[in-house]
Amino acid sequence: MKTIDLALLGFGNVGKAFARLLTAKKQELQEQFGFNSRITAIATGSHGVCLDPNGIDEQNLLNLLASKDPLDLSVLDKMAFHGDMFDFIQQAPAHVLVETTPVNPRSGLPALDYLRAAAKRGLHLITANKGPVVYGFRELTELTKEHGRLFRFESTVMDGAPIFSLFRGPLAGAKLHGFYGILNSCTNLLLDRMRGGETLEQAIAYGASIGITETDPSNDVDGWDAAIKVAVLSNVLMGQNLTPMDVKPIGIRRITPEMISTAESQGKRWKLVCQGGWQDGHYQVSVKPEMVGPSSPLYTVDGTSSYVNFALDVLPGLGILETDPSPKTTAFGLLADLIDIVKSETR
Amino acid sequence: MKTIDLALLGFGNVGKAFARLLTAKKQELQEQFGFNSRITAIATGSHGVCLDPNGIDEQNLLNLLASKDPLDLSVLDKMAFHGDMFDFIQQAPAHVLVETTPVNPRSGLPALDYLRAAAKRGLHLITANKGPVVYGFRELTELTKEHGRLFRFESTVMDGAPIFSLFRGPLAGAKLHGFYGILNSCTNLLLDRMRGGETLEQAIAYGASIGITETDPSNDVDGWDAAIKVAVLSNVLMGQNLTPMDVKPIGIRRITPEMISTAESQGKRWKLVCQGGWQDGHYQVSVKPEMVGPSSPLYTVDGTSSYVNFALDVLPGLGILETDPSPKTTAFGLLADLIDIVKSETR
Repeated sequence: MKTIDLALLGFGNVGKAFARLLTAKKQELQEQFGFNSRITAIATGSHGVCLDPNGIDEQNLLNLLASKDPLDLSVLDKMAFHGDMFDFIQQAPAHVLVETTPVNPRSGLPALDYLRAAAKRGLHLITANKGPVVYGFRELTELTKEHGRLFRFESTVMDGAPIFSLFRGPLAGAKLHGFYGILNSCTNLLLDRMRGGETLEQAIAYGASIGITETDPSNDVDGWDAAIKVAVLSNVLMGQNLTPMDVKPIGIRRITPEMISTAESQGKRWKLVCQGGWQDGHYQVSVKPEMVGPSSPLYTVDGTSSYVNFALDVLPGLGILETDPSPKTTAFGLLADLIDIVKSETR
Repeated sequence: MKTIDLALLGFGNVGKAFARLLTAKKQELQEQFGFNSRITAIATGSHGVCLDPNGIDEQNLLNLLASKDPLDLSVLDKMAFHGDMFDFIQQAPAHVLVETTPVNPRSGLPALDYLRAAAKRGLHLITANKGPVVYGFRELTELTKEHGRLFRFESTVMDGAPIFSLFRGPLAGAKLHGFYGILNSCTNLLLDRMRGGETLEQAIAYGASIGITETDPSNDVDGWDAAIKVAVLSNVLMGQNLTPMDVKPIGIRRITPEMISTAESQGKRWKLVCQGGWQDGHYQVSVKPEMVGPSSPLYTVDGTSSYVNFALDVLPGLGILETDPSPKTTAFGLLADLIDIVKSETR
């Protein structure tokens, strides 16, 4: 049985959920796909680093995660590692780098540099981070290809819902003309709460209390998270070369309770609508609030759900809906990427 | 460049759309997937048969299709073929059989026998026909496998929208617990028309006038088409062994204009809802009319659209929506199957 060694860069909610999912799916992965995976290295910004060429003990890792004490991964370190992230990337005893550090929507750095270094070392790359995808999709695809490796990022848009794998596989014979959808679940929840009578500020406070919105919610509220996803879809699926700034997003900050009730009285709902596609020979993108009625599939996309609708030459309307996202669904995106990588090696 | 020779069994709207799509996509298929496909044989019930080992001339075939005269394929026959469908299957100079004959929901015959014969001859099988899938999924999978061939049927549920390919590829690492959705677009259109004020009879007459409903619409209206799709999904994706009869469908015949307006007054809509999945350790299926409100993704599925929602261990809610179906979208399902088969051969 093949053993795949994984180095995890970043170990927040998604990284932790991925470690748990690997343990939960161990037997399935062996039986169904004929491989064993081991986490051999984890690097974090503020919770220490650990490396073990024989695989970090799963139970010890799960115990650490379950403990109420502050996380300190260095207690599991078997290599007495000292160095920075680039040293870590060079020394991690791994075939695959799984990167889940925070997104930087303005440059993709430093994650992009980490992934470049790992690609040059000949590792497969998996990331849940939109930054390096939007700023480095072509470069990282080429770099990994030079070493016979793959660059995968399924969980960057709509968590673990299959998007990029769909276009590599089942939809490979189709041509994409454009897409629209609701790609930021935070603002979708906020608009739902406002429909329930809250102001934007109250809705943000609620979102923060359940861990959906960040302390500074401007990344979501001003449309930047949606814009980076529009740029990712445009660059990866439609050959564009956009930054989030090119999308010029309009967020939901100017949506007032009055606007919400006006929409309601017309049987409509405000949604932060993302769009990208060819119109009259020009590639157009937008992120902006729109009122949608019950004839639109966006109308029923509520709470933290997200949705994308693709217009293809052979499928005029193909929609993908994701409901109830969580770190586990994002972790599945990472796992799907890993399975794809393993399949590519055994082909 | 590899050349794949195709035998078409059945040449109705879907078969014709497939022939047109192959011509339209010829260059793409060469450039992107490195193969040429030729239709070398077509057999129909009442429009003749034609075979040409060098590939039936595309332009002649398209001209025949464009002509107003009754279709007679035998004018293109280069082999002077005489015989029945089984002789055709034996003699067709082809690698792949593409079967699109009418569905028989009670037994899958005779299509199932045709596919058996083709599998035993060592052909790859592609079908748009739910009958042989629901009654012969395991057998045909095994038979083709014995010859190193594949059995594919993407277009049997939701036309060309990726369903089965999704579970073979992107979702291979996930476990399916159950599904629900709107799988029969005819009844969905009829219910929409009734919401617009028509009786069921008027709606059926409209459906017939635009070619959506058949002269005898009971296959759709009484839920049999939905039931066979529920059985197909259950058998293929969830290891069941159901017939449409096991699903015991309840159609829309008893939905009255009064029921429609009662639902409307409650802000709800009647939909013919399909379900399948594990509940308390038992596998349960149903097809029955239900009132759904705007918190359900089914609420906005209107006209001839269809929708399926999957509950998976790692993705609690993954929905696939198809809008604007046509013979072309079904033909794309056949093409996606063909691409999958070609990929399997070059791996």
